[in-house]
Amino acid sequence: MIIIMKTGASNDQIDHVVAKIEQLGCRVDISHGEEKTIIGVIGNGRPLDREQIERWDGVSQTVPILKPFKLASRDFHPVNTVVEVGDVRLGGDEVVVIAGPCAVESRGQVIETAHAVKEAGAKILRGGAYKPRTSPYSFQGLGEEALEILALAKQETGLPIITEVMEPQMVPLVTVYADILQVGARNMQNFALLHAVGEAHRPVLLKRSMMSTIEELLMAAEYILSHGNQNVILCERGIRTFETYTRFTLDINAVPVLKKLSHLPVFVDPSHATGKWELVEPISRAAIAAGADGLEIEVHPRPEEALSDSAQSLKPTRFNELMRGLKPVTQAVGRSL
Amino acid sequence: MIIIMKTGASNDQIDHVVAKIEQLGCRVDISHGEEKTIIGVIGNGRPLDREQIERWDGVSQTVPILKPFKLASRDFHPVNTVVEVGDVRLGGDEVVVIAGPCAVESRGQVIETAHAVKEAGAKILRGGAYKPRTSPYSFQGLGEEALEILALAKQETGLPIITEVMEPQMVPLVTVYADILQVGARNMQNFALLHAVGEAHRPVLLKRSMMSTIEELLMAAEYILSHGNQNVILCERGIRTFETYTRFTLDINAVPVLKKLSHLPVFVDPSHATGKWELVEPISRAAIAAGADGLEIEVHPRPEEALSDSAQSLKPTRFNELMRGLKPVTQAVGRSL
Amino acid sequence: MIIIMKTGASNDQIDHVVAKIEQLGCRVDISHGEEKTIIGVIGNGRPLDREQIERWDGVSQTVPILKPFKLASRDFHPVNTVVEVGDVRLGGDEVVVIAGPCAVESRGQVIETAHAVKEAGAKILRGGAYKPRTSPYSFQGLGEEALEILALAKQETGLPIITEVMEPQMVPLVTVYADILQVGARNMQNFALLHAVGEAHRPVLLKRSMMSTIEELLMAAEYILSHGNQNVILCERGIRTFETYTRFTLDINAVPVLKKLSHLPVFVDPSHATGKWELVEPISRAAIAAGADGLEIEVHPRPEEALSDSAQSLKPTRFNELMRGLKPVTQAVGRSL
Amino acid sequence: MIIIMKTGASNDQIDHVVAKIEQLGCRVDISHGEEKTIIGVIGNGRPLDREQIERWDGVSQTVPILKPFKLASRDFHPVNTVVEVGDVRLGGDEVVVIAGPCAVESRGQVIETAHAVKEAGAKILRGGAYKPRTSPYSFQGLGEEALEILALAKQETGLPIITEVMEPQMVPLVTVYADILQVGARNMQNFALLHAVGEAHRPVLLKRSMMSTIEELLMAAEYILSHGNQNVILCERGIRTFETYTRFTLDINAVPVLKKLSHLPVFVDPSHATGKWELVEPISRAAIAAGADGLEIEVHPRPEEALSDSAQSLKPTRFNELMRGLKPVTQAVGRSL
Repeated sequence: MIIIMKTGASNDQIDHVVAKIEQLGCRVDISHGEEKTIIGVIGNGRPLDREQIERWDGVSQTVPILKPFKLASRDFHPVNTVVEVGDVRLGGDEVVVIAGPCAVESRGQVIETAHAVKEAGAKILRGGAYKPRTSPYSFQGLGEEALEILALAKQETGLPIITEVMEPQMVPLVTVYADILQVGARNMQNFALLHAVGEAHRPVLLKRSMMSTIEELLMAAEYILSHGNQNVILCERGIRTFETYTRFTLDINAVPVLKKLSHLPVFVDPSHATGKWELVEPISRAAIAAGADGLEIEVHPRPEEALSDSAQSLKPTRFNELMRGLKPVTQAVGRSL
Repeated sequence: MIIIMKTGASNDQIDHVVAKIEQLGCRVDISHGEEKTIIGVIGNGRPLDREQIERWDGVSQTVPILKPFKLASRDFHPVNTVVEVGDVRLGGDEVVVIAGPCAVESRGQVIETAHAVKEAGAKILRGGAYKPRTSPYSFQGLGEEALEILALAKQETGLPIITEVMEPQMVPLVTVYADILQVGARNMQNFALLHAVGEAHRPVLLKRSMMSTIEELLMAAEYILSHGNQNVILCERGIRTFETYTRFTLDINAVPVLKKLSHLPVFVDPSHATGKWELVEPISRAAIAAGADGLEIEVHPRPEEALSDSAQSLKPTRFNELMRGLKPVTQAVGRSL
Repeated sequence: MIIIMKTGASNDQIDHVVAKIEQLGCRVDISHGEEKTIIGVIGNGRPLDREQIERWDGVSQTVPILKPFKLASRDFHPVNTVVEVGDVRLGGDEVVVIAGPCAVESRGQVIETAHAVKEAGAKILRGGAYKPRTSPYSFQGLGEEALEILALAKQETGLPIITEVMEPQMVPLVTVYADILQVGARNMQNFALLHAVGEAHRPVLLKRSMMSTIEELLMAAEYILSHGNQNVILCERGIRTFETYTRFTLDINAVPVLKKLSHLPVFVDPSHATGKWELVEPISRAAIAAGADGLEIEVHPRPEEALSDSAQSLKPTRFNELMRGLKPVTQAVGRSL
Repeated sequence: MIIIMKTGASNDQIDHVVAKIEQLGCRVDISHGEEKTIIGVIGNGRPLDREQIERWDGVSQTVPILKPFKLASRDFHPVNTVVEVGDVRLGGDEVVVIAGPCAVESRGQVIETAHAVKEAGAKILRGGAYKPRTSPYSFQGLGEEALEILALAKQETGLPIITEVMEPQMVPLVTVYADILQVGARNMQNFALLHAVGEAHRPVLLKRSMMSTIEELLMAAEYILSHGNQNVILCERGIRTFETYTRFTLDINAVPVLKKLSHLPVFVDPSHATGKWELVEPISRAAIAAGADGLEIEVHPRPEEALSDSAQSLKPTRFNELMRGLKPVTQAVGRSL
């Protein structure tokens, strides 16, 4: 960290800052400029509280030098993490597509969708058992019944299952059924939940909150990693901006940025990021072209009857076309599907 | 709801939409325009799924007419809700100030602060026992020990206590100690938590998420109200924008908007909304002038040693000045402090 | 337009609204709902002022049905517009890359860059003569001298020239030299400038403002089109969001949305949209995969000495690699480079 | 400026950076940390290009220490600037209210409004002669005829006039009629216009762009100041965020921040910042309570017939009430009206 003193800070103030920093077990290197004095802090590995230091007398601002995340950082783990789920490898050479309905509504709906997405080339089945809904009057999910339906679909098709956990105490039950635990965008900073999935023995797909920076996403991943779970998949799903034509704005820049900063696999959810089914295909292509390791796409056999997210769900035939169009794009960037 | 058909929608498509709407128990009123046909839907009280309907053949868009919240709406409850906590009335004529440290750090720190803020005119003591922190390496709060310290401070000063709940299973324990349960901004859409506090027998101060619209805040309040708890206090605490000089951007417009749309008390947290202690005083004045029913302010005896939010915490002397300066502003808008 | 009356609007109020609408030469269709009365307005082709109508007694809100732009809309012009510049076709099957330095700094710099980008496959040369700079103390461009240097580069390489116009009175001079006039993001709503380039006899590349919606971009294009210039190229270059790791956030969703709403060619500027040269390549691929008709990329022979935008400029060797990597992506989406 | 070298930067790279900085006429102070080397640059008064330096080999990032604006900064001009217009003092003890119609529509409309706002206590009359409109099909203003109407209103009431300039070449003509030149939000970074008003002999009211940071507003003011015009008034008028209930989000934090960073008067436009007339009164109070030096408010005798901004215009009677309610708030913060 660098501490920049105010113009006109007194020698007493400077000495006081130096003394306090040394008490914290760090060393300092002082640079007296024409207008300002700069104190370089040479750390001892423990993080310092920048806000606290900025309240000290004579201090103008502090500048962090090291990134606030370590376990998620490529600096300390240069090789890509590959998360293995059965024989599916997320973050490897192959692009992996997760597909399925937003919410599990019935056995028939899920089985039909599972067969369709498998045939089109999806490798993992998604389906929500518990749904975070903005309105208390909306469909909230079938709960454990949904988990059983997903298990049945897995048995029939062999597709591993991903489903969302919304509360820490749900984790044990969902872990029984799911191959991957999903943490939704609205829970990205539900720290109790991050702690719980950090201790679970299942990979976690962590969605970026619609209002979180890239760094905050990596800090949320750090929570999970620091509790022992190394199998974290990051997922960009659109951020909130002033644009209203689409539901969210996909931050496509985040894909190469996350690949650069972190060793973790990076997925994109084009369904939530656009909120409109007719945009899912071009945005899926863009995500793969930008370097994403995979996609999570909503598919519903009859979107006009879907109990949630009907606007953004693809019919199986459209999903099939999407997958066929995606293949040459994956090859163009040196990968396969 | 109004359904706007596409230009050139066929009679068959129109008939099909009408039939489906009537199956759902609603009546329709059709208007054939020069370019488009409009179908007015006269409801039966149950909400319709707009996204689903927009997937029907020939439908261009739908337009909601009624607000999606009812219990929180002033339309159905014109009189202001006043939440009573001991002999403090939130949402009444008097402006109420909640003050105290961001996090409970020690018995001494809390007792000292409690006496100071009481003397300055604060009516309720705040203090965090469990802290949602962006970094897993930051101070996470003292937990139950903190709750006991808050109880002691209440005993000494008579000030009611407000503290944050972060998980549904925390609610019973926190309810033992707290007079008001706080739901933090990052948990505004933690629906399991909203459900749990909706069944608790304590008033709830619900903070607007940094990424949520005013309507989403009211929908979150609706969750709590619909589970039986009528004592909800709304709190604007800054939204995330592109401006980086301040930590968040206080949405001052939200104060009169919330007062107009809802009967619930509206508070403002100028500490989080600015992130800088020197802005807390002018923004506190602005909030009251805009019609806020109260404030929640962070006060710490020694901000330069605070374990969290040091940048935005006021020293007791500054808080005292703030309260003295606030008094004439409350009077200028016909209220008292 | 649809006019939604307030709950409890009186018959007098309704009659009054109907009378005023009819005075404006429109017909109405009234639907009496359980709670609200809806008045469908059947227009006479002239736009009505929604804000004004919303101030009439008893009116709750109005809902537009038709889009506010016509000339830019695909509804009225279903076939793609192809802008021809010499033998380069923008908006046709081939993807077109515009490249060159942010600012013209010297003859040597421009000639060297022009040769390099031509060899790599760029079809048009960019270079700023007049630079909009946030600081009055930054380099403001060489002005007419720069235009002459660009003309020389065109003569040597045969590449058409694109350069920015910043004021209406600049248009005649810049038109002498430039094959395409560029309207920068900060001038997207400089209506006097839009008027002037609308009367110029040169194609216009119109950049989306960092703060404008997709609809506002199309309205700005409408200004140019309505003044007689049909050769408008739209360009997404990143919008401003809360994310700070990148300079702007590329709104990749805007690419397929603009292609759907409008017949005009859609370009992407990955240099400004990211602000970091190492992100330009993956984002260029993503833009093409999403359906963009072309790219505008900053290239500088020695970015570490560039007088503006050094952080986002590619060296010629990197640009060459980018172009080679882009080729298979264009083919994967059925186009060529 | 501080230059932070990459972890593992070689001695050669460090020496190279030092040599280049010294060539630029600056001195350096080197601090070798455990992980990184930090180079403090002790300047010679001329700004360095941070982006350029960040492209040098071995450099990780740079950190600015001094603010990029000087003339607008309170650091170099601690005393408040008071702008005098006739006997009205903007930025002094008295709060000044500017009021009038969005656009000049007719002689009658302006004269009626001018008398009404004067009687209610406004000190300056606003009215648009040239209107920047999003749609080319909207009313664009009466031009010079409007300027003559404003002059007449000034003659009748004695109120000084403020009106918007949209292009550099308009400045001479508008200067003939106007006492204050207004630069609108969409032109805040129209640098040619800033240059032109910087050379004009009239005070300038500079509106913050809806997508500009506080620092960018101050840089725009710096343009005007650096061209010789010291009479600049800053005006916050709402920024663009994801909230859609209001037209913009008033950044109330900006008021005390601007007062702290700059010596220039700070105004607030509650009409544009909210877009709804019923919010103008509470937000006006909030602005004054936060420390604003004045307000600019839209008033129209018959908003339901206004040719622009009808939704946010107050009727004279409401404006009169607003002014009466504002008086005690100004007194509560130690000012007068």
